[in-house]
Amino acid sequence: MAVREKVFDVIISCFKRHGAEVIDTPVFELKETLTGKYGEDSKLIYDLKDQGGELLALRYDLTVPFARYLAMNKLTNIKRYHIAKVYRRDNPAMTRGRYREFYQCDFDIAGQFDPMIPDAECLKIICEILSTLQLGDFQIKVNDRRILDGMFNVCGVPDSKFRTICSSVDKLDKMSWEDVKNEMVEEKGLAPEVADHIGAYVKQHGGVSLVEQLLQDPKLSQNKQAQEGLRDLKLLFEYLTLFGITEKISFDLSLARGLDYYTGVIYEAVLLQTTARQGEEPLGVGSVAAGGRYDGLVGMFDPKGRKVPCVGLSVGVERIFSIVEQRMEASEEKVRTTETQVLVAAAQKKLLEERLKLVAELWDRGIKAELLYKKNPKLLTQLQYCEETGIPLVAIIGEQELKDGVVKLRSVASREEVDVRKENLVEEIRRRTSQHPLHLLN
Amino acid sequence: MAVREKVFDVIISCFKRHGAEVIDTPVFELKETLTGKYGEDSKLIYDLKDQGGELLALRYDLTVPFARYLAMNKLTNIKRYHIAKVYRRDNPAMTRGRYREFYQCDFDIAGQFDPMIPDAECLKIICEILSTLQLGDFQIKVNDRRILDGMFNVCGVPDSKFRTICSSVDKLDKMSWEDVKNEMVEEKGLAPEVADHIGAYVKQHGGVSLVEQLLQDPKLSQNKQAQEGLRDLKLLFEYLTLFGITEKISFDLSLARGLDYYTGVIYEAVLLQTTARQGEEPLGVGSVAAGGRYDGLVGMFDPKGRKVPCVGLSVGVERIFSIVEQRMEASEEKVRTTETQVLVAAAQKKLLEERLKLVAELWDRGIKAELLYKKNPKLLTQLQYCEETGIPLVAIIGEQELKDGVVKLRSVASREEVDVRKENLVEEIRRRTSQHPLHLLN
Repeated sequence: MAVREKVFDVIISCFKRHGAEVIDTPVFELKETLTGKYGEDSKLIYDLKDQGGELLALRYDLTVPFARYLAMNKLTNIKRYHIAKVYRRDNPAMTRGRYREFYQCDFDIAGQFDPMIPDAECLKIICEILSTLQLGDFQIKVNDRRILDGMFNVCGVPDSKFRTICSSVDKLDKMSWEDVKNEMVEEKGLAPEVADHIGAYVKQHGGVSLVEQLLQDPKLSQNKQAQEGLRDLKLLFEYLTLFGITEKISFDLSLARGLDYYTGVIYEAVLLQTTARQGEEPLGVGSVAAGGRYDGLVGMFDPKGRKVPCVGLSVGVERIFSIVEQRMEASEEKVRTTETQVLVAAAQKKLLEERLKLVAELWDRGIKAELLYKKNPKLLTQLQYCEETGIPLVAIIGEQELKDGVVKLRSVASREEVDVRKENLVEEIRRRTSQHPLHLLN
Repeated sequence: MAVREKVFDVIISCFKRHGAEVIDTPVFELKETLTGKYGEDSKLIYDLKDQGGELLALRYDLTVPFARYLAMNKLTNIKRYHIAKVYRRDNPAMTRGRYREFYQCDFDIAGQFDPMIPDAECLKIICEILSTLQLGDFQIKVNDRRILDGMFNVCGVPDSKFRTICSSVDKLDKMSWEDVKNEMVEEKGLAPEVADHIGAYVKQHGGVSLVEQLLQDPKLSQNKQAQEGLRDLKLLFEYLTLFGITEKISFDLSLARGLDYYTGVIYEAVLLQTTARQGEEPLGVGSVAAGGRYDGLVGMFDPKGRKVPCVGLSVGVERIFSIVEQRMEASEEKVRTTETQVLVAAAQKKLLEERLKLVAELWDRGIKAELLYKKNPKLLTQLQYCEETGIPLVAIIGEQELKDGVVKLRSVASREEVDVRKENLVEEIRRRTSQHPLHLLN
């Protein structure tokens, strides 16, 4: 949890830096809200038992609840973040940070705006978060559903097979082209030459020059959807240049994304293995953030079908936790799980009352303080507790100190002790611990 | 959510000040984990549908999952807090902050310690939180399950009826003694004179002097359990005196608490109506925090029945949200939902590129900044956005400013504008907004 809180801090700071407010939605939704939104993965939805009342299911992601929330509250314009757990009846894979209950960190911009400005900001946010977390080098693959659909069209894929062929393309990060082609031809009944035609496109990736090249492509240039997608990508690259992040972006025609609801630009950030540090067990390369534009989803929840264009991103924070944890285990860095500044200790017996009075005084002045819940703990036990839990200071009282109106303030690390007048104690503790920020990352 | 986050901040700061670490548990537990822990309220548990695999149910509180977690991980010693949602299939009452899904904020101390030191700290924590939140005057009722059981025993209640008679006593905060007596006699089959005997006890409340008086009570003084409870309460009062909070504490023999698992001291904090401010709709007096000692619960989850004594508290934060929200509505105080420090705006058309460059620079330097997602927004529109959302500063660029290497920094409140050299902009924004803490409470 200490690691998690640190990672969340980075992500929340970034979301707030970009002016987002925070919302919350219930952990369960009406079952019908989730039906038909997730394609093949719908079987992974957890249902609640019918105990009377509405039929409910645990949320599968934060995007569909967000769209439902916008439609219900008739909101046409919001920039919000939402950090919460989602639920999938999947096979867990602990080392890869894949669980049945896991956090998503979502940031979305809803509203009718000029093209690609919010989309560019989403990519900027992913860059800021991954850079700040120092997870090593990363790349953000970008594509557009309209380019994919246009490409399927010019390659001769029948309209009815767009989504299922899109699913096959989506597997290219885990399977070879030969296997994907095989799936397209054998399982999904595509003509081999159509598959090859797709293959020639999806092998391509590059920067804005590839966008320009495809704008001149004899076939794609004849397709309206592809043209729109490519023209928007070109504009996106202009904005990304102004944001100074084009070096992290790769236009990749093989990026398809599994979910049904995307309608425009899509993106996925992957960590690159090359920077694996020494002593670290390498984790499988994987997506750590992803998102895209979904202009049709809110309309599905509105009685009149009124659309609210949306674009957003989701940070896959469980994988990031795994990576940060492994890095810390490797570095043998000790993580404090509390923030206690000082332990109130006694050097002799029969000083429980004095300890209680002092610790209450410190609490009331805002100092993070503890005492051992023993009437007469040994001084050594009290010092060991500090060593174990990382408490940096000990405020020791004894009969002499009480007589002199002082407290012996001991630094656990250096073992130095000085007498501090009681009225100066709070200030001295603050002074000494203000230089102790938790630095769990890197 | 802005209100919630502020309330959570107060609570979390307090929990950390007392040296607690944070844990997390899944939203669902094995159904069998929850069975038999909540008495009459078990019918309110949400079950998950049996889709294969384990039988699961949504957590009903955070205490039982905590005890399960301690037993599973063989922990005998921890001070933790946990803030999360719990689930009850109950009739919601929105105005009283009673929902089916709601937050609990729990702080617990597990471990074998000298008597009443952790218990006293729990009461201190409740006092600190309620005082900091400035919810008006409050009182913490304190009792002990052993005193209740001893009292039932000396009054002649059969052992088998202790828990159900305890439930009746628990209703005294909502029902008159006559109605409670009626329930005891008519529904639960108690002899009227036994009920009257109980009545004579449960009408009593007071301070440490009542404890001392009952220690001399001819009947209670003969009961071992009651004696233990009373002796511990006397010690508790000593510690509460050292903490300086006895004026908030009332030893109240009618306090029973509904849950089965308490074994020792129990407490419940209620807000007192007398301080309702002008213009506020008075809310029903209610418990806003409660807790107690449960020394047997962890043992129920340990294969060998090994006990881990625990004491804790839970803050009923939904009621607090209701109160703070109503107070703010009454005061017409405007709550900001974002923390944006500055809007990057343009005074003329065709400056989108310059705006994007400047906003990215501010983000990269850690400034919370926004821009409107329009190519050529009007200056007035941009200023209005700041007024609506409470953004205090506008960084305006125009052709002249670009030429001069400055940015016009405008204070939204005072409408004053000054030219700031671009290289000093970040510092100037920081300087001007460091005095803008969110002060949502009070």
